[in-house]
Amino acid sequence: MSRGKPGAEQLALSADILSRLKTREDLISEDGTDCRNYGLLGGIIEARRLVAELTGTRPENVFIGGNASLNLMYNMVANAWIYGINGHEPWSRQGKIRFLCPVPGYDRHFRITETLGIEMINIPMNEAGPDMDLVEDYVNHDPSVKGIWCVPKYSNPDGYTYSDETVRRFAALKPAAEDFRIFWDNAYIVHHLDFDDCDTLLNIHDVLKENGQEDLVYEFISTSKIVMPGAGICALITSEHNLVDIRRLMNAQIISFDKINEMRHAKFFVSGKGIEEHMKRHAAILKPRFDICYKAFEELGEAGIARWTTPKGGYFISLYVPEGCARRTVQLCKDAGVVLTGAGAAYPYGKDPADSHIRIAPTYPSSSELEKACAVLVVCAKLAAVEKLLS
Amino acid sequence: MSRGKPGAEQLALSADILSRLKTREDLISEDGTDCRNYGLLGGIIEARRLVAELTGTRPENVFIGGNASLNLMYNMVANAWIYGINGHEPWSRQGKIRFLCPVPGYDRHFRITETLGIEMINIPMNEAGPDMDLVEDYVNHDPSVKGIWCVPKYSNPDGYTYSDETVRRFAALKPAAEDFRIFWDNAYIVHHLDFDDCDTLLNIHDVLKENGQEDLVYEFISTSKIVMPGAGICALITSEHNLVDIRRLMNAQIISFDKINEMRHAKFFVSGKGIEEHMKRHAAILKPRFDICYKAFEELGEAGIARWTTPKGGYFISLYVPEGCARRTVQLCKDAGVVLTGAGAAYPYGKDPADSHIRIAPTYPSSSELEKACAVLVVCAKLAAVEKLLS
Repeated sequence: MSRGKPGAEQLALSADILSRLKTREDLISEDGTDCRNYGLLGGIIEARRLVAELTGTRPENVFIGGNASLNLMYNMVANAWIYGINGHEPWSRQGKIRFLCPVPGYDRHFRITETLGIEMINIPMNEAGPDMDLVEDYVNHDPSVKGIWCVPKYSNPDGYTYSDETVRRFAALKPAAEDFRIFWDNAYIVHHLDFDDCDTLLNIHDVLKENGQEDLVYEFISTSKIVMPGAGICALITSEHNLVDIRRLMNAQIISFDKINEMRHAKFFVSGKGIEEHMKRHAAILKPRFDICYKAFEELGEAGIARWTTPKGGYFISLYVPEGCARRTVQLCKDAGVVLTGAGAAYPYGKDPADSHIRIAPTYPSSSELEKACAVLVVCAKLAAVEKLLS
Repeated sequence: MSRGKPGAEQLALSADILSRLKTREDLISEDGTDCRNYGLLGGIIEARRLVAELTGTRPENVFIGGNASLNLMYNMVANAWIYGINGHEPWSRQGKIRFLCPVPGYDRHFRITETLGIEMINIPMNEAGPDMDLVEDYVNHDPSVKGIWCVPKYSNPDGYTYSDETVRRFAALKPAAEDFRIFWDNAYIVHHLDFDDCDTLLNIHDVLKENGQEDLVYEFISTSKIVMPGAGICALITSEHNLVDIRRLMNAQIISFDKINEMRHAKFFVSGKGIEEHMKRHAAILKPRFDICYKAFEELGEAGIARWTTPKGGYFISLYVPEGCARRTVQLCKDAGVVLTGAGAAYPYGKDPADSHIRIAPTYPSSSELEKACAVLVVCAKLAAVEKLLS
């Protein structure tokens, strides 16, 4: 229950992708590019079109990267740090710079900014997304604020989807820093738990276009949790204007990414619709696992010692135990043999100010393991709460 | 004839690698790691062992990266730039820093250092490798010299292999800068043109060990020119001590590389011996192409207006035309429809001081195309030489 990893049943869904490339013709892109040779940084048209369909954008706005969107995010931050964005002064030469971090959030986002010494500012999350009054206040007035980490759909770990109003307010930001960017990690773009009852996220690029602010967002997606983690492809979706400079910088760093794997995806899914059909099979496996957690947590709810989120997609549930009890609950679980994500991991610097949040990742264990683990967790949470009352 | 790309016949040699993973068992590493899921930064044991066999090192010294060794080289330079090496001050904070660049060399190496604003110093190459008197003089006395780009076997573009003495002198360097590293790009480690008559390169790690200097070298290899460019795997081979810090830094940048592709390689080649057998089939295709060039160049030799290298491996031939004639020759070829690598490309900042060097890449065109292209090149080289005599 510690990391957001697909389980064995899910991995089996994509077995056929490995044998999808059969003939030499399968390896030649429609524009004649031989996927087996060097070249075409940014990806073959088939892969860019697939991502464009999935994200409601155009292939011209899609840059296909390697096997990991996290790596592409790191690249974008590191490139801004070393070289600057679109001709602006490198971030490394601008004194103290800062990122906004909606919390709880994704620990690996925070690790990127922490590693570079970028100061992180907590922004509270609510069901509609980050506190936008605070976001606007920082972004529109403080030129040292250079970015914000967002998981706009089925946020990691709460599972909230940003409301239309939140997306509109993001697209209407007037940053004090011209080299401010929104890091829009759309990791769970098609990762619904029930396709008949799921969240929709407003397409931020459409709103950006209306506002003449297409450069403001770097959107990232990955097929790691669609096919096989680490063996997928990832993409950056942004304005053509941004991509000119990004290609120039990336061109010094790599000749091209793995076009064979791009073609493997294109042949396996054929279209955005194909991805959606595939994800319905993931949903059928995952929904019961989330339900197992909710059922177990009821006991905590009845006792009035926890609340939790009930997302319609994504990979996580947030469990909020009483203030000061998260760390102790996780420790008690560990002593009992159940490994959870470390308490505080979902906050910059690993510090949950309230020591209340526990990230639950129900996807990887089998159903029976998950039931047992949840039972242990419930006992530990109660124990920690009682200890606190008595202390 | 412009880039070092494998030709169609070569690409066909590796077709079976794409269907080599058939069963679920094929995807599980011998230590139980599921290649289909997140984790194990640095690679599965099967891939690390394969690289260790190929390089004469131990799996403990091998870090498997993504699809491109150039990207791993960039990472190592950029990490040193941002974070510093093993706790030393970041290169970006040390004022002007410099790299030694044996010339002619690989343009994409030079582009990495140029992009970061690292000053590049030309070091003349000879048949035994770089001018080691000069290298020692710089490295052992100038703390601003932080690295040197080396292609020690079948160097790009001369095709020279460093002599044992050169390797020993590299391994015996006493750098003025503790954070100096040798970037040992062993790109053509097993890329002989004739396995019965090929160069051998002394294993630098063995000599480093004797000297107690294991941290001095980052060796890089790639399977791009063994299987399919851009769809291979790459590796960094260095001391376990260096790898501790490298793993720490990379761990903030990516969760794991593509282990499925690593396993694909392990199953396809089985052992270092398997790679060697495979490369003999490449050699059979490539040697005749190099011979076509030599045959065509004879006319230039007889006229006394060119000399060229005759490597026993690698991807390139250096053709040296009279001083001041390279750029004109390349231009004349272009006008006649034959695209060569730009004159000067093999030198830092694209500047060949003598304007004499032309890099010949015989691998990609078909034999008949190559014959025609060489015929054009010979005419153009003669024309350029005559023009110069008359001017």
